[in-house]
Amino acid sequence: MKQPKDETVTQIAVVVADIERACEHYAAVFGIEKPAWFLTEEADESQIRYRGQPTPARAKLAFVEFANLTLELIEPVDGPSIWRDHLERCGDSVHHIAFGVKGMQQAVDEYEARGVPMVQKGEYPGGRYAYLAAADKLGMDIELLESA
Amino acid sequence: MKQPKDETVTQIAVVVADIERACEHYAAVFGIEKPAWFLTEEADESQIRYRGQPTPARAKLAFVEFANLTLELIEPVDGPSIWRDHLERCGDSVHHIAFGVKGMQQAVDEYEARGVPMVQKGEYPGGRYAYLAAADKLGMDIELLESA
Repeated sequence: MKQPKDETVTQIAVVVADIERACEHYAAVFGIEKPAWFLTEEADESQIRYRGQPTPARAKLAFVEFANLTLELIEPVDGPSIWRDHLERCGDSVHHIAFGVKGMQQAVDEYEARGVPMVQKGEYPGGRYAYLAAADKLGMDIELLESA
Repeated sequence: MKQPKDETVTQIAVVVADIERACEHYAAVFGIEKPAWFLTEEADESQIRYRGQPTPARAKLAFVEFANLTLELIEPVDGPSIWRDHLERCGDSVHHIAFGVKGMQQAVDEYEARGVPMVQKGEYPGGRYAYLAAADKLGMDIELLESA
C-alpha cells in the first residue's frame, strides 16, 4: 500500500439530502455554472453490494472540479446504502476521500487487515469502487477507485 | 475570486475529540509513524477572534501529508471556537477544506457577498487564517490561508 505522501486524494465527497439545492449553493458560493447531476445505474448494472447483500440503492451525483481534485456531491436514492447511513447520522457533510488503486482486491484486503472493513462496492461505467468504513477511526470513510 | 478549476485544495481538516487517539488511528490505517501534534499559541499571540470577540480557544494540531494536499487533525482546546462548535454538533468528522489566498480581506469580502460569513480568524507563525461558515450550504466550512 502506498504511503500517504505518495497517495493522491482524487476526490472529496459530500453526501447531501437535496442535490439540486446543493448544486445551486455550490454555484452561488464559487461563482460557477450550476453543476449538472445524473442518476447512477440500476442495481443490475451497478452490481452494488451493501454489507455483502444486493441493494436497490442508487445515487444522484454531481462533480465540481478543483485544480488538484474533484469534489463529488452525492444524494442517496432508495437504499440501504453507506450514503443513506451517513446522511441519517450526520446530515449534509463530508463522507469520504478517494484514492485510485490498481488491484482492488489486494487493496481492500490490506485495509481490512488494518481494521477498516469494506462495506459497499459496485461498478460504474469505466471502473469499480469500494468503500472502507473508517469514520470511527479517521473521521471519514475511504473510497477506492479502480479504472477498468 | 478564482474559479474552482484554478483553485487548489491545500488542506482537508478533521476535527477530533482526542488527537492522541486520532494520530494512533491514522498511523495504524495508513502504515505511517504516529503524527506528532502541537498546541497552537496563546490567544495574545494568535490574535484569535471568534464571532468578532477575543476567545481563549486554542487547538492541538497534527498533519498527515498526502501527495497533493495536507490532512489536518484538530482537537479543540478551551473555547469557544468554530472547532468546538463542530465537534459538539458532529463529533469526529471533516470540518473544512482550505485554499491559499493573496489579499485576505478582499477574499473574505467576496465570500461574504456570496452569503458565506467569516466567523473566526487568527494569526499563526508565518501567516493568518479565516474561517467561512459554509456548512449549511456546502456541507463543510472553508478556510482561507494567507502567508505573511
